[in-house]
Amino acid sequence: MTVLTDDVRDAIEGGHLAHLVTLNPDGSPQLSVVWVTLEDDEVVAAHLFEHQKVRNVRRDPRVVLSIETGGQDERGFKEYLVVHGTARITDGGAPALLQRLAERYIGPGVKFPPMDDPPEGYMTRITIDRLGGVGPWSS
Amino acid sequence: MTVLTDDVRDAIEGGHLAHLVTLNPDGSPQLSVVWVTLEDDEVVAAHLFEHQKVRNVRRDPRVVLSIETGGQDERGFKEYLVVHGTARITDGGAPALLQRLAERYIGPGVKFPPMDDPPEGYMTRITIDRLGGVGPWSS
Repeated sequence: MTVLTDDVRDAIEGGHLAHLVTLNPDGSPQLSVVWVTLEDDEVVAAHLFEHQKVRNVRRDPRVVLSIETGGQDERGFKEYLVVHGTARITDGGAPALLQRLAERYIGPGVKFPPMDDPPEGYMTRITIDRLGGVGPWSS
Repeated sequence: MTVLTDDVRDAIEGGHLAHLVTLNPDGSPQLSVVWVTLEDDEVVAAHLFEHQKVRNVRRDPRVVLSIETGGQDERGFKEYLVVHGTARITDGGAPALLQRLAERYIGPGVKFPPMDDPPEGYMTRITIDRLGGVGPWSS
Protein backbone atom coordinates (compact mmCIF):
# COMPACT_ATOMS: atom_id res chain seq x y z
CA MET A 1 0.00 0.00 0.00
CA THR A 2 1.34 3.38 -1.03
CA VAL A 3 1.41 6.06 1.68
CA LEU A 4 -0.67 9.02 0.54
CA THR A 5 0.63 12.52 1.13
CA ASP A 6 -1.71 15.46 1.61
CA ASP A 7 -0.90 16.58 -1.95
CA VAL A 8 -2.07 13.25 -3.32
CA ARG A 9 -5.20 13.28 -1.17
CA ASP A 10 -6.03 16.79 -2.35
CA ALA A 11 -5.53 15.74 -5.98
CA ILE A 12 -7.94 12.80 -5.65
CA GLU A 13 -10.50 14.56 -3.47
CA GLY A 14 -10.39 17.95 -5.21
CA GLY A 15 -13.29 17.49 -7.62
CA HIS A 16 -11.02 16.93 -10.64
CA LEU A 17 -12.07 14.47 -13.36
CA ALA A 18 -10.30 11.10 -13.35
CA HIS A 19 -9.39 9.46 -16.66
CA LEU A 20 -9.85 5.78 -15.76
CA VAL A 21 -8.43 3.02 -17.93
CA THR A 22 -9.54 -0.61 -17.82
CA LEU A 23 -8.86 -3.52 -20.16
CA ASN A 24 -11.43 -4.87 -22.61
CA PRO A 25 -11.85 -8.63 -23.25
CA ASP A 26 -9.68 -8.34 -26.39
CA GLY A 27 -6.94 -6.59 -24.38
CA SER A 28 -7.57 -3.16 -25.85
CA PRO A 29 -7.67 -0.19 -23.47
CA GLN A 30 -11.03 1.23 -22.36
CA LEU A 31 -11.07 4.81 -21.07
CA SER A 32 -13.86 6.50 -19.12
CA VAL A 33 -13.86 9.81 -17.33
CA VAL A 34 -15.31 9.42 -13.84
CA TRP A 35 -15.80 11.25 -10.55
CA VAL A 36 -13.61 9.94 -7.75
CA THR A 37 -12.84 10.33 -4.10
CA LEU A 38 -10.93 8.42 -1.39
CA GLU A 39 -12.39 5.90 1.06
CA ASP A 40 -10.03 4.00 3.36
CA ASP A 41 -7.11 5.11 1.15
CA GLU A 42 -8.68 3.51 -1.91
CA VAL A 43 -9.78 5.52 -4.94
CA VAL A 44 -13.52 4.97 -5.38
CA ALA A 45 -15.93 5.67 -8.23
CA ALA A 46 -19.64 4.88 -8.44
CA HIS A 47 -21.68 3.54 -11.36
CA LEU A 48 -25.46 3.13 -11.56
CA PHE A 49 -25.23 0.54 -14.32
CA GLU A 50 -23.01 -2.40 -15.18
CA HIS A 51 -20.91 -0.50 -17.69
CA GLN A 52 -18.11 -2.06 -19.73
CA LYS A 53 -15.56 -0.75 -17.21
CA VAL A 54 -17.33 -2.66 -14.41
CA ARG A 55 -17.27 -5.90 -16.39
CA ASN A 56 -13.65 -5.21 -17.35
CA VAL A 57 -12.49 -4.83 -13.75
CA ARG A 58 -14.21 -8.07 -12.77
CA ARG A 59 -12.15 -9.89 -15.42
CA ASP A 60 -8.83 -7.99 -15.11
CA PRO A 61 -8.16 -5.80 -12.04
CA ARG A 62 -5.28 -3.82 -13.58
CA VAL A 63 -6.24 -0.16 -13.92
CA VAL A 64 -4.55 3.20 -14.29
CA LEU A 65 -6.05 6.64 -13.88
CA SER A 66 -4.87 10.21 -14.28
CA ILE A 67 -6.07 13.49 -12.87
CA GLU A 68 -5.23 17.05 -13.94
CA THR A 69 -4.99 19.04 -10.74
CA GLY A 70 -4.90 22.59 -12.07
CA GLY A 71 -1.42 23.59 -10.91
CA GLN A 72 1.81 23.88 -12.86
CA ASP A 73 5.45 23.30 -12.04
CA GLU A 74 8.36 25.73 -12.35
CA ARG A 75 8.84 24.79 -16.03
CA GLY A 76 5.25 25.72 -16.85
CA PHE A 77 4.20 22.06 -17.20
CA LYS A 78 0.65 21.45 -16.01
CA GLU A 79 0.51 19.12 -13.02
CA TYR A 80 -1.20 15.74 -13.12
CA LEU A 81 -1.31 12.66 -10.96
CA VAL A 82 -1.13 9.12 -12.35
CA VAL A 83 -2.37 6.25 -10.17
CA HIS A 84 -1.50 2.65 -11.01
CA GLY A 85 -3.79 0.36 -9.10
CA THR A 86 -5.60 -2.90 -8.57
CA ALA A 87 -9.37 -2.57 -8.68
CA ARG A 88 -12.35 -4.54 -7.47
CA ILE A 89 -16.11 -4.09 -7.83
CA THR A 90 -18.53 -4.00 -4.92
CA ASP A 91 -22.32 -3.92 -5.17
CA GLY A 92 -24.52 -1.05 -4.09
CA GLY A 93 -24.00 2.41 -2.66
CA ALA A 94 -23.71 4.22 -5.98
CA PRO A 95 -26.56 6.76 -5.64
CA ALA A 96 -25.34 8.01 -2.27
CA LEU A 97 -21.76 8.48 -3.45
CA LEU A 98 -22.85 10.04 -6.74
CA GLN A 99 -25.04 12.53 -4.87
CA ARG A 100 -22.13 13.45 -2.62
CA LEU A 101 -19.74 13.81 -5.56
CA ALA A 102 -22.27 15.73 -7.68
CA GLU A 103 -22.18 18.51 -5.10
CA ARG A 104 -18.41 18.59 -5.50
CA TYR A 105 -18.23 18.16 -9.29
CA ILE A 106 -21.33 20.04 -10.46
CA GLY A 107 -22.35 22.30 -7.60
CA PRO A 108 -24.18 22.58 -4.29
CA GLY A 109 -27.84 21.67 -4.31
CA VAL A 110 -27.79 19.61 -7.52
CA LYS A 111 -29.84 16.39 -7.46
CA PHE A 112 -27.89 13.48 -8.93
CA PRO A 113 -28.73 10.88 -10.02
CA PRO A 114 -31.64 12.85 -11.49
CA MET A 115 -34.17 9.98 -11.31
CA ASP A 116 -36.29 9.33 -8.22
CA ASP A 117 -35.57 5.65 -7.66
CA PRO A 118 -32.08 4.93 -8.99
CA PRO A 119 -30.59 1.44 -8.95
CA GLU A 120 -28.08 0.74 -6.18
CA GLY A 121 -25.37 0.19 -8.78
CA TYR A 122 -21.71 -0.64 -8.31
CA MET A 123 -18.54 0.81 -6.89
CA THR A 124 -15.02 0.52 -8.30
CA ARG A 125 -12.49 0.43 -5.44
CA ILE A 126 -8.86 0.86 -6.41
CA THR A 127 -5.92 -0.05 -4.22
CA ILE A 128 -3.10 2.35 -5.10
CA ASP A 129 0.03 0.44 -6.14
CA ARG A 130 2.16 3.23 -7.57
CA LEU A 131 2.01 6.97 -8.26
CA GLY A 132 3.43 9.03 -11.12
CA GLY A 133 2.90 12.20 -13.08
CA VAL A 134 4.10 15.77 -12.72
CA GLY A 135 3.68 17.49 -9.36
CA PRO A 136 4.70 17.25 -5.72
CA TRP A 137 4.18 13.46 -6.01
CA SER A 138 6.80 13.07 -8.78
CA SER A 139 9.88 11.15 -7.83
CA MET B 1 -11.27 7.32 -41.27
CA THR B 2 -13.51 9.38 -38.99
CA VAL B 3 -14.58 12.77 -40.36
CA LEU B 4 -13.46 15.47 -37.95
CA THR B 5 -15.83 18.30 -37.15
CA ASP B 6 -14.56 21.74 -36.20
CA ASP B 7 -15.44 20.97 -32.56
CA VAL B 8 -13.18 17.92 -32.61
CA ARG B 9 -10.38 19.82 -34.33
CA ASP B 10 -10.60 22.58 -31.74
CA ALA B 11 -10.49 20.02 -28.92
CA ILE B 12 -7.32 18.39 -30.29
CA GLU B 13 -5.60 21.62 -31.36
CA GLY B 14 -6.63 23.74 -28.38
CA GLY B 15 -3.57 23.25 -26.19
CA HIS B 16 -5.33 20.81 -23.82
CA LEU B 17 -3.39 17.91 -22.32
CA ALA B 18 -4.01 14.48 -23.84
CA HIS B 19 -4.14 11.44 -21.57
CA LEU B 20 -2.62 8.81 -23.87
CA VAL B 21 -2.96 5.10 -23.13
CA THR B 22 -0.78 2.38 -24.66
CA LEU B 23 -0.36 -1.30 -23.78
CA ASN B 24 2.67 -2.66 -21.93
CA PRO B 25 4.27 -6.01 -22.88
CA ASP B 26 2.33 -7.72 -20.07
CA GLY B 27 -0.93 -6.26 -21.37
CA SER B 28 -1.31 -3.74 -18.56
CA PRO B 29 -2.30 -0.19 -19.49
CA GLN B 30 0.35 2.53 -19.68
CA LEU B 31 -0.80 6.15 -19.36
CA SER B 32 1.19 9.26 -20.25
CA VAL B 33 0.05 12.84 -20.50
CA VAL B 34 1.29 14.40 -23.74
CA TRP B 35 0.96 17.46 -25.92
CA VAL B 36 -0.91 16.83 -29.16
CA THR B 37 -2.03 18.44 -32.38
CA LEU B 38 -3.41 17.34 -35.75
CA GLU B 39 -1.41 16.65 -38.90
CA ASP B 40 -3.21 15.24 -41.94
CA ASP B 41 -6.16 14.37 -39.69
CA GLU B 42 -3.96 12.22 -37.47
CA VAL B 43 -3.35 13.03 -33.81
CA VAL B 44 0.40 13.53 -33.37
CA ALA B 45 2.65 13.70 -30.31
CA ALA B 46 6.44 14.11 -30.19
CA HIS B 47 8.98 12.38 -27.95
CA LEU B 48 12.69 13.12 -27.69
CA PHE B 49 13.47 9.70 -26.26
CA GLU B 50 12.34 6.14 -26.85
CA HIS B 51 9.93 6.08 -23.92
CA GLN B 52 7.91 3.01 -22.92
CA LYS B 53 4.93 4.38 -24.86
CA VAL B 54 7.00 4.46 -28.05
CA ARG B 55 8.08 0.85 -27.59
CA ASN B 56 4.51 -0.10 -26.70
CA VAL B 57 3.04 1.37 -29.89
CA ARG B 58 5.63 -0.45 -32.00
CA ARG B 59 4.43 -3.74 -30.49
CA ASP B 60 0.67 -3.03 -30.23
CA PRO B 61 -0.88 -0.09 -32.12
CA ARG B 62 -4.13 0.06 -30.14
CA VAL B 63 -4.33 3.35 -28.24
CA VAL B 64 -6.95 5.55 -26.64
CA LEU B 65 -6.63 9.14 -25.48
CA SER B 66 -8.83 11.64 -23.73
CA ILE B 67 -8.81 15.42 -23.57
CA GLU B 68 -10.63 17.76 -21.19
CA THR B 69 -11.70 20.72 -23.27
CA GLY B 70 -12.81 23.18 -20.63
CA GLY B 71 -16.50 23.42 -21.48
CA GLN B 72 -19.50 21.84 -19.82
CA ASP B 73 -22.85 20.57 -21.07
CA GLU B 74 -26.36 21.61 -19.99
CA ARG B 75 -26.26 19.14 -17.07
CA GLY B 76 -23.09 20.70 -15.68
CA PHE B 77 -20.92 17.78 -16.81
CA LYS B 78 -17.45 18.83 -17.89
CA GLU B 79 -16.80 18.12 -21.56
CA TYR B 80 -14.11 15.73 -22.76
CA LEU B 81 -13.18 14.02 -25.98
CA VAL B 82 -12.16 10.36 -26.19
CA VAL B 83 -10.24 9.18 -29.27
CA HIS B 84 -9.89 5.49 -30.05
CA GLY B 85 -7.13 5.03 -32.57
CA THR B 86 -4.44 3.03 -34.27
CA ALA B 87 -0.96 4.42 -33.76
CA ARG B 88 2.38 4.18 -35.48
CA ILE B 89 5.83 5.58 -34.71
CA THR B 90 7.90 7.60 -37.13
CA ASP B 91 11.49 8.74 -36.60
CA GLY B 92 12.60 12.35 -36.24
CA GLY B 93 10.93 15.73 -36.15
CA ALA B 94 10.31 15.81 -32.42
CA PRO B 95 12.21 19.02 -31.49
CA ALA B 96 10.43 21.12 -34.10
CA LEU B 97 6.96 19.90 -33.10
CA LEU B 98 7.75 20.22 -29.38
CA GLN B 99 8.91 23.81 -29.91
CA ARG B 100 5.70 24.62 -31.76
CA LEU B 101 3.53 22.97 -29.11
CA ALA B 102 5.47 24.52 -26.22
CA GLU B 103 4.34 27.94 -27.41
CA ARG B 104 0.77 26.67 -27.27
CA TYR B 105 1.01 24.67 -24.03
CA ILE B 106 3.44 26.76 -21.97
CA GLY B 107 3.47 30.18 -23.57
CA PRO B 108 4.89 32.39 -26.31
CA GLY B 109 8.66 32.72 -26.43
CA VAL B 110 9.49 29.63 -24.38
CA LYS B 111 12.42 27.54 -25.61
CA PHE B 112 11.59 23.85 -25.62
CA PRO B 113 13.26 21.40 -25.64
CA PRO B 114 15.52 23.40 -23.30
CA MET B 115 18.78 21.79 -24.46
CA ASP B 116 20.79 23.17 -27.37
CA ASP B 117 21.23 20.02 -29.44
CA PRO B 118 18.23 17.78 -28.79
CA PRO B 119 17.92 14.35 -30.38
CA GLU B 120 15.57 14.12 -33.37
CA GLY B 121 13.35 11.73 -31.42
CA TYR B 122 10.12 10.07 -32.46
CA MET B 123 6.54 10.92 -33.36
CA THR B 124 3.41 8.99 -32.47
CA ARG B 125 0.83 9.32 -35.26
CA ILE B 126 -2.67 8.14 -34.45
CA THR B 127 -5.33 7.36 -37.03
CA ILE B 128 -8.69 8.18 -35.44
CA ASP B 129 -10.99 5.14 -35.49
CA ARG B 130 -13.79 6.28 -33.20
CA LEU B 131 -14.74 9.23 -31.00
CA GLY B 132 -16.55 9.37 -27.66
CA GLY B 133 -16.88 11.44 -24.53
CA VAL B 134 -19.16 14.26 -23.47
CA GLY B 135 -19.55 17.27 -25.77
CA PRO B 136 -20.68 18.24 -29.25
CA TRP B 137 -18.99 15.06 -30.53
CA SER B 138 -21.16 12.76 -28.36
CA SER B 139 -23.58 10.55 -30.24
